[in-house]
Amino acid sequence: MSLREEALDLHRKHQGKLEVVSKVPVTNSRDLSLAYSPGVAEPCKEIHRQQERVYEYTAKGNLVAVVSDGTAVLGLGNIGPHAALPVMEGKAVLFKAFAGVDAVPVCLDTTDPEEIIRTVKLLEPTFGGINLEDIAAPACFTIEERLKNELDIPVFHDDQHGTAIVTLAGLINALKVTDKRMQDIRVVANGAGAAGIAIIKLLLSMGVKHVVMCDTKGAIYEGRVDGMNPVKDMIAKNTNHERLQGSLAEVMAGADVFIGVSVGGAVTPEMVRSMNRDPIIFAMANPDPEILPEEAMRAGAKVVGTGRSDFPNQVNNVLAFPGIFRGALDTRATTINEEMKIAAAHAIAELIAPDELSADYVIPSPFDPRVAPNVAAAVARSAMATGVARLSVEPVEVKEKTISMTRS
Amino acid sequence: MSLREEALDLHRKHQGKLEVVSKVPVTNSRDLSLAYSPGVAEPCKEIHRQQERVYEYTAKGNLVAVVSDGTAVLGLGNIGPHAALPVMEGKAVLFKAFAGVDAVPVCLDTTDPEEIIRTVKLLEPTFGGINLEDIAAPACFTIEERLKNELDIPVFHDDQHGTAIVTLAGLINALKVTDKRMQDIRVVANGAGAAGIAIIKLLLSMGVKHVVMCDTKGAIYEGRVDGMNPVKDMIAKNTNHERLQGSLAEVMAGADVFIGVSVGGAVTPEMVRSMNRDPIIFAMANPDPEILPEEAMRAGAKVVGTGRSDFPNQVNNVLAFPGIFRGALDTRATTINEEMKIAAAHAIAELIAPDELSADYVIPSPFDPRVAPNVAAAVARSAMATGVARLSVEPVEVKEKTISMTRS
Repeated sequence: MSLREEALDLHRKHQGKLEVVSKVPVTNSRDLSLAYSPGVAEPCKEIHRQQERVYEYTAKGNLVAVVSDGTAVLGLGNIGPHAALPVMEGKAVLFKAFAGVDAVPVCLDTTDPEEIIRTVKLLEPTFGGINLEDIAAPACFTIEERLKNELDIPVFHDDQHGTAIVTLAGLINALKVTDKRMQDIRVVANGAGAAGIAIIKLLLSMGVKHVVMCDTKGAIYEGRVDGMNPVKDMIAKNTNHERLQGSLAEVMAGADVFIGVSVGGAVTPEMVRSMNRDPIIFAMANPDPEILPEEAMRAGAKVVGTGRSDFPNQVNNVLAFPGIFRGALDTRATTINEEMKIAAAHAIAELIAPDELSADYVIPSPFDPRVAPNVAAAVARSAMATGVARLSVEPVEVKEKTISMTRS
Repeated sequence: MSLREEALDLHRKHQGKLEVVSKVPVTNSRDLSLAYSPGVAEPCKEIHRQQERVYEYTAKGNLVAVVSDGTAVLGLGNIGPHAALPVMEGKAVLFKAFAGVDAVPVCLDTTDPEEIIRTVKLLEPTFGGINLEDIAAPACFTIEERLKNELDIPVFHDDQHGTAIVTLAGLINALKVTDKRMQDIRVVANGAGAAGIAIIKLLLSMGVKHVVMCDTKGAIYEGRVDGMNPVKDMIAKNTNHERLQGSLAEVMAGADVFIGVSVGGAVTPEMVRSMNRDPIIFAMANPDPEILPEEAMRAGAKVVGTGRSDFPNQVNNVLAFPGIFRGALDTRATTINEEMKIAAAHAIAELIAPDELSADYVIPSPFDPRVAPNVAAAVARSAMATGVARLSVEPVEVKEKTISMTRS
């Protein structure tokens, strides 16, 4: 059976992928009087007295809304909120399987950023965190920024930061393999969408000094007029200090790292050959990477990562978001800040021991069971260290709360 | 341990009462590629092609939002959306335990009816049905009416219709016990809140001719000026054709049935003694009924029902809402109409066989396992008969889909 048929069968078999179950018994009148009326009035009164106790008596503290408007679903584009639902259910499945986080899809029948912001704010009482998903740029930037400012629960746009964190983890290890340093490398990124922008921002936070970002019109530089927007203006201001102009091919000459979140085939072997010694390539366009790994290797690339599971070094968001939310929820963090994201990247990278590290193994497998607990513990520590945690937890406790994948 | 302590412990023990689990495995790379990228694109594309297929490939068709603004929670009043959460989780637990319906709490941080309406409409892609809960009158009437008109999924305010349906079921059997007929009885109802209004409407649909409703100012009649509102105007127009005026005590003289959804102690033994032969009393104020059953019986009442589990004939909404949504979801009904509600009442009432029927047993137990399947089948048949079903189902299929309570 083809992947297509098998996927359709799987989704049809159970009528979707999620169910909501009770953690308490309801088999007799006593059970009913505790879980529902009249006993349920007691936790209600406690929460009414002190709102923070909602975390103690309800599922809020472990419940994440996977919010989408269906405008940028996978590579399918703007297919609408109904058609986006299988992806959001899938995301919820991964949240539970990899980190014991309860998650529900919230597909919204609007593409108006103000309405999305307002709706998510109205939903806050029910949820401990908000995972934004498959919302098109540039609306996704406004929506995330506003919600981060206006809510005191973690808000995280996975298409931006999940990809950025795993890319950074891969880069940390790739630099060890090529014996280069973050502050010295020249990075060229192609594709100024949600993921591209987030990657650049995270690299700047990590101390990378030389970055040039390209879009379909070539290098973005301060003073460029064509095809700019407020986000690209910010990129122009904070990168490309030499004000390089020209095509992707032109600015790639001499670069140490190429990061592609653009389209299949955007990079040629010649472009790889023009790079500095031991080129590092993250070619993450899906399903066809900017350049195929074997082609890049033949042209001299040292490390190649893609978005695909059938090549080495898969940049898979599932390495990041489950553990990040686990750590944020366990510490009741008010936000997910840059420090927590960098801590997550290091926690992923460090799982590959120096003697295991190789050009073909700079990113752990999505099924490495150490990943989510290690990310959760690092994120929890970082939340506490940066003062955004409302609860203090022992790292070991974080690990124990993480539910193993066999649970699902 | 007191009920209070036990209830708090139960809620704290698991951090709330609900969890979201996967119906599909995620233990290896193949699983991941089917439940998530790239396989998940296939059901997305199918739904994008034909929106109705969202029912085939996602959990939408079995997923109900339990929506509240926290303005009228149990007997606690306006305690807000956070403090309402334990009740909404409890409701979701009952949905699953009694009818296999997946439900999630949606507590909204607004009390503006327009915002509630707009938000629920934006949430439509994700949910197969909307259960409104603990929203204060009169806002609840507007919200339900507008949502019923503007959405093509079932919308049901349980505080109104759940109570009304179970009261009607009890009344159907109480009339058999007292050998009276629906079209002959004189009914007096006290309390013009959400439940009271819905009970009156349903009794009128059932052919009851003589109804007088009282509020704190006494009988509601056409032409009354004090303390009226649009809903009471509607009641005045459609009931009390004799334009009776005066206090509850005055209009209760000669009545066959008293229905109380008001406050404890509102009815005295004298008032019961003033009623017609074999009075039927539904005294549903919580926790203290309008009159205690033994007191009513001593004053000559023939049948007494209350909202409490420690007296006979408990009017418990759990007899209605799980089976009603099961039947509506299974037939993919576009609404829950009056006929479906009346069918549900008959389905509850008919479970007590003529030789079992007695003054102390006019309403089945909430734990009678026949209730939800019988209600679901009757509601499904009625949905098909009244043309609101988008799917045709065999009644037996409905029964099999109903998950027994031991599941939870």
